Amino acid sequence: MSWAEWFATQRAAREAAGLQRILRPRAPGDDLIDLASNDYLGLSGDPGVRRAAAEAALVWGAGAGASRLVTGTTTLHAELERELAEFTGREAALVFSTGYHANLSAVTALADRDAVIVSDAHVHASLIDAARLSRAAVRVVPHNDVAAVRAALAAAGGRRALVLTESVFSVLGDAAPLAELAGVCAEHDALLVVDEAHGLGVAGDRGRGLLHGLGLSGHPHVVMTATLSKSLGAMGGVVLGSAALIDHLVNRARPFIFDTGLAPAPTAGALAALRTLRARPDLPARIHERGAALAEQLHVPRSAGAVLSVPMPSPHVAVAAQAEALAAGVRVGCFRPPSVPDGISRLRVTTHAGLDEERWARAVDVLARVAAQSSSSASATKIPAGPRT
Amino acid sequence: MSWAEWFATQRAAREAAGLQRILRPRAPGDDLIDLASNDYLGLSGDPGVRRAAAEAALVWGAGAGASRLVTGTTTLHAELERELAEFTGREAALVFSTGYHANLSAVTALADRDAVIVSDAHVHASLIDAARLSRAAVRVVPHNDVAAVRAALAAAGGRRALVLTESVFSVLGDAAPLAELAGVCAEHDALLVVDEAHGLGVAGDRGRGLLHGLGLSGHPHVVMTATLSKSLGAMGGVVLGSAALIDHLVNRARPFIFDTGLAPAPTAGALAALRTLRARPDLPARIHERGAALAEQLHVPRSAGAVLSVPMPSPHVAVAAQAEALAAGVRVGCFRPPSVPDGISRLRVTTHAGLDEERWARAVDVLARVAAQSSSSASATKIPAGPRT
Ligand SMILES: Cc1ncc(COP(=O)(O)O)c(C=O)c1O
Ligand SMILES: Cc1ncc(COP(=O)(O)O)c(C=O)c1O
Repeated sequence: MSWAEWFATQRAAREAAGLQRILRPRAPGDDLIDLASNDYLGLSGDPGVRRAAAEAALVWGAGAGASRLVTGTTTLHAELERELAEFTGREAALVFSTGYHANLSAVTALADRDAVIVSDAHVHASLIDAARLSRAAVRVVPHNDVAAVRAALAAAGGRRALVLTESVFSVLGDAAPLAELAGVCAEHDALLVVDEAHGLGVAGDRGRGLLHGLGLSGHPHVVMTATLSKSLGAMGGVVLGSAALIDHLVNRARPFIFDTGLAPAPTAGALAALRTLRARPDLPARIHERGAALAEQLHVPRSAGAVLSVPMPSPHVAVAAQAEALAAGVRVGCFRPPSVPDGISRLRVTTHAGLDEERWARAVDVLARVAAQSSSSASATKIPAGPRT
Repeated sequence: MSWAEWFATQRAAREAAGLQRILRPRAPGDDLIDLASNDYLGLSGDPGVRRAAAEAALVWGAGAGASRLVTGTTTLHAELERELAEFTGREAALVFSTGYHANLSAVTALADRDAVIVSDAHVHASLIDAARLSRAAVRVVPHNDVAAVRAALAAAGGRRALVLTESVFSVLGDAAPLAELAGVCAEHDALLVVDEAHGLGVAGDRGRGLLHGLGLSGHPHVVMTATLSKSLGAMGGVVLGSAALIDHLVNRARPFIFDTGLAPAPTAGALAALRTLRARPDLPARIHERGAALAEQLHVPRSAGAVLSVPMPSPHVAVAAQAEALAAGVRVGCFRPPSVPDGISRLRVTTHAGLDEERWARAVDVLARVAAQSSSSASATKIPAGPRT
């Protein structure tokens, strides 16, 4: 089959399965209420954050110019790293151009062919790809199953081992049993890599993350990763841990060494957002208040973070519900197989602290109506999870 | 061995080999002449580019807020994609958050376990990682060896095949035999993936890239990737090719689908830089004039792009020469084993069109002096290439 035929065949298969997707550019200032993005605290558009990002572009230029080890480290990067480490209670931090790079870097610099990786079944694509790229032996264990992690570590036979999890999971919004996992890792001298992409800025004391909230930020067997593109409203990723770990990443992580540094504007934007977050503990608090009230109205479990997952009876109903919310001015996410770990289609609704009371109330009304209609339209059908693409 | 001991052992080994590296943050407006960064055209700091990046941060906020398929595609991204495709003479383009992501995405969405990847021995780490991540069978062929590529494709036995190369190589600055490679790929219905990270903005007619310069931009067996972080002075990556290819990537490339969109400021910065480049054909022309004159003065071969590679007698001498240039106000790069493909240590000097005549002349003087001293200090020792980390 020629490449052109292959593309056509693949597309036809996607279309037949109702999975063909296209990009829809949005214009500035469209008036939709956005409960689909991960800008939970509204900091991307905060006036101080915008100004800081703009100012950095004027002072430093549009790009970092080179990789971090050549000339791409500015004093902005160093400040951001220092303040992120301080905020989350870790010794040191390293900033990457994306959260994806942070995960690729942490995992591939720590694990190689001689190592074992034990991965929760629900972790994000970036951690799955990281594990693959590392060439370590990978054991996938059932979601949030501490006993399975213990058994997998016991079977690792003294090889260097990493355990991969998220703190607040990106699809279902549930939390990992971090204290138990850290304990198991300590027993086996494994490192627990926790992706706080959806925890930072939301969970724990004043948004310091779930690890901090559980008193685990100083734990010697815990490495934290996160993105600067969600609650911090900018772009970039970060790994946090001991100074020895960060030194190791600087010297060994290929997706760090061979990648141009994060551009000045998002670096400064993330820094300004972090400072705003420190000054505004009401922002993460509002996520939890609003999230709890919304969960009650929609009859779904509370979220450990800002992601509320609303099961739908079928992929079809989920898509229709999303369209209906959109028609009523509210944008929400929609998960269908194969991108849901358990095969159940869902609306993904993110709680936003940045919306004013009036807009938030309007969004809640729309969602309550849409969810009520959808749940009465049919009973839930479970579709087996395919490969998560 | 505990993790703490492992970090210490690894660091000690790096220190013993003289390979321990640390980050050195630079302050804004340090007065060094920078021949180490890849901002060849000086566009990162161009006033119009800075302003465009700043304006985008003010209008759109610090981040894209979500992945491109959710709400992270702005009209800015769409404009940039359209103009990049037009400039390079391709049907369509897709923008990524880094050049690394562009390469990971192109390769992993095109090749899987059932495919064969034939890779030039000198390709960039991002292409090497991409090939690994794809799980395809990888055949590494000697640098720029068309016959070896042909033999590897013949041996692929009809499996889908990709050939990976750069247009202008990042370390040595030499060019790939693209016309021959495209011909061989057409014979075998393989796709040639050409990383123009160091070609775009520099090589070909008015910086449209080496593929365009060779009349290959419409070639059905050629896929182009590039970064927006070098000649375009911003951040981000791009894949260019047919509309069918781009549609395939939007739907299948995990490092695209599961990554937050490129932030507004670097998106707008790259767009403004591209427009400046179109209006200023003198910029790429100046790269070649200055590069040719400098190559002659340093007695090294001319470069196909902006990267001039100056062999040094030993890693030791290379480091000393770099330090001497720095003391004289000129920053250049330094390659030592294991990051040089052939084991020869080098200064890496990038030709910059953005420097005024006086500063450029000063830089040339310093480099000529340093190079003359270094070449007389010892005869070249060749150290076998280790793993390229
Ligand atoms: C859990 C998790 N980890 C990592 C990432 C990647 O972060 P980034 O978008 O900054 O690459 C995401 C989302 O994008 C995520 O949800
Ligand atoms: C040849 C080549 N490809 C890809 C990249 C990666 O691009 P980026 O820095 O935008 O990730 C680089 C350099 O960084 C490069 O030199």
